[in-house]
Formats: sequence, C-alpha cells, structure tokens
Amino acid sequence: MRLEIASTYSENGYQDYELHLNEHTGTHLDAPIHFIKDGIAVHEIPVHCLCGPLVVLDIRDRVLHNHDATVIPDDILRWEKKYGKIPSNAIIIMNSGWGKYFGDNNAFVNMDKQGIPHFPGWSKTAVEFLLEARSVLGIGVDTLSLDQGASEDFPVHNTWLSNGLWGLENVANLDNIPPSGAFLFVGASKVYGGTGSPVRLIAVI
Amino acid sequence: MRLEIASTYSENGYQDYELHLNEHTGTHLDAPIHFIKDGIAVHEIPVHCLCGPLVVLDIRDRVLHNHDATVIPDDILRWEKKYGKIPSNAIIIMNSGWGKYFGDNNAFVNMDKQGIPHFPGWSKTAVEFLLEARSVLGIGVDTLSLDQGASEDFPVHNTWLSNGLWGLENVANLDNIPPSGAFLFVGASKVYGGTGSPVRLIAVI
Repeated sequence: MRLEIASTYSENGYQDYELHLNEHTGTHLDAPIHFIKDGIAVHEIPVHCLCGPLVVLDIRDRVLHNHDATVIPDDILRWEKKYGKIPSNAIIIMNSGWGKYFGDNNAFVNMDKQGIPHFPGWSKTAVEFLLEARSVLGIGVDTLSLDQGASEDFPVHNTWLSNGLWGLENVANLDNIPPSGAFLFVGASKVYGGTGSPVRLIAVI
Repeated sequence: MRLEIASTYSENGYQDYELHLNEHTGTHLDAPIHFIKDGIAVHEIPVHCLCGPLVVLDIRDRVLHNHDATVIPDDILRWEKKYGKIPSNAIIIMNSGWGKYFGDNNAFVNMDKQGIPHFPGWSKTAVEFLLEARSVLGIGVDTLSLDQGASEDFPVHNTWLSNGLWGLENVANLDNIPPSGAFLFVGASKVYGGTGSPVRLIAVI
C-alpha cells in the first residue's frame, strides 16, 4: 500500500493522498466474485448481510504446537456446548492467536525453506458443516487467508464463496472480544465490481 | 478511481484488483489532519468516536430555491423543537436533497460560467453553535464538501476539524433515514496517516 501526496497545505489549503492498494490489503472482505466468476461483487452484498452476532472460535492452544491447525467441526460443537447453538445470521471468526504477528511479515506469512507458508485457517469440513447445519453470514480469520497457508487449491474459499457468502481476513484485536455475545458491523467499502475491500470492523458488546 | 487487474482466475485461481483512488472518493471521512497540520489522522480517531445517535437536518425546501443554501443554527433549533435536544455524542448530517445528483457529475458539482461550484453545505455559524453548545462527534453532508460549493477559504472545514472532530461527505440514501432515532456506525478504513478514507456507513433504526 502506497500513499502519494495529491494536495498540500501550502498549495491547496489542505492535504490529501492518492491511495494505491490491493483490494485485499489489511483487514478486508473477500466477496464471492473473488473466486467465483459469476459470484456477487462487494457492492452487491446487502447491508443486512454485513451485520450479525459475532462468534469467536478460540483455537490458540492447538496452534501453539501446529502452525497448520484448522478450525474443524469439533471447534464449533465445543463452542456450542459452552454458549448454546450458533445464533442465526452469525459471523464466525477464528482466533488462532496469529494476530500477535501483525506487522512482522516474516512471522505472519511463516514460509518454510520450500517457500510454502504455514499459518492456520478453516478446514473444508468445518465450512461444509456450517453450510449444511447452521445459519451463518460470513466467516473470518486472524491470518492472511480463510484457507490454511499451506493450501494450494483453496478449498475453503471455493466452497464458502460459491455459496454467495463472504469472508474476512487479517481480523485484529480478537483477544478483546468475548467468545459469545458481541454484535459485529462489517464496514465494507462499496467498490463497484470489487472482489473485496478493506473493511472497518466495529464490534459492540 | 481506477481498478487495475492484479490476479486472474486463469492464472491465479482467483481474481483481484489494485485500487487507485483519492482518499476523499465516494462517501468518505475527513480527518482533522486534512486541514490541520498537527491534527489527528484517520487511524487515530478512537472507535467510540465513530458511533453515535444520528440526526438528519432536512433543508431540502430551501435548496429548491437556493443552491448555495447552508445549514444555519435555526435548522438545529427547529429540529430540537420537534425531536428534543440534540443527543450527546450525536452525528449530524445535512439532507439537502443533493443526493439525487449522485452519478451525474455536472449536476453534482453544478459549476457556473465562472467555474465556481454551487451546492449546499454547513455555515460557519452553525458549527460554531455546535462547538459551543452541543455535544457532537461529527457532521456530514450529502454534497461534495462540508463547506458550500462556492466557498474559497473553507471556514467550516477549518473551524470544525481544528477542534479534533471529523466530517462525512457524499453521504447517500438520507431520504431512507428518520430525522431522529437512528444510530450510525462509521466504518472508516484505518489508513495510517490518512487525511481521510472511504467509509461504509451503517445506520440502525
């Protein structure tokens, strides 16, 4: 991401910048069209699909020993045992503890000697479980990708987005959010035709 | 604003774009630093200052006869007669009816033969009244600028932003929002050092 000066106090009376960035920079949303050619773009996601009860799935313990750990159906069932059934129109975000590496690109991408990244993500079985048995608006991760870093064919992206649903990547500050009971507003920029966009997430407790 | 293809389905398995845009494109926020050299940038606005009760001031009638109309203290007092005192930490947005020109650049900027734009905005006296006598987080307009189009020295920007407060420009869909009773979430992208950013506004009624 690059900021280029467009106006200056001395010449214009105010300052501003031209922004140059990939749609998928920082905390951002993946729209269905990111992977699915005829999927909807970010501006076509109805606003009521961008607000919902927030569920945080904590897999930090498993990640300590396994950087390729994924959210599995058991993580969802374990959450439900404690907090009750996943609420309707939920937004479910993985807290893998990876957020502590924000700003340290090497640790965040965690590439091995073969150039393969290693960081946690969702499993295909977990999103298939959600699609079949729960009512969910979107899923998210505190890592670079809905799929685990080592994935080559993005089964989670393809499965989830092909159902017209969206994902959030690089979600920050999850340690400050209770596992259950918060409500999330996903402030996605309405870029026409965009495959995604930077978002401001506001959780209300 | 320009979208440049960065990845393609055939080469990468997914598509995305590089975005090139000014910070002050579409519905967007002006941070204090936009006009005030030592003011805070968009990433420094605390999240609790981006959520508040929404007040919509309807000046559509006056704008029909005067494209240079501004929000004046009387508009605020008239709103208060109907709906009670402006709530604490309010976000107050002008509905001038100008939103109907979105997408028609000539009508939206409305330049005269001398090249001077004509569209409504706030008056300096109205924002001075708010600063002295009410508790407000931010103000907004459904036009290009907090100041009326014909302004050359931006008294509203300079007065309001120098108090560490922010503004919203090009706010859409105000006709669907009640004058009183909605609550607004301002999803400003957290661009480090940014003088503003595109925002997704979500009003809850």
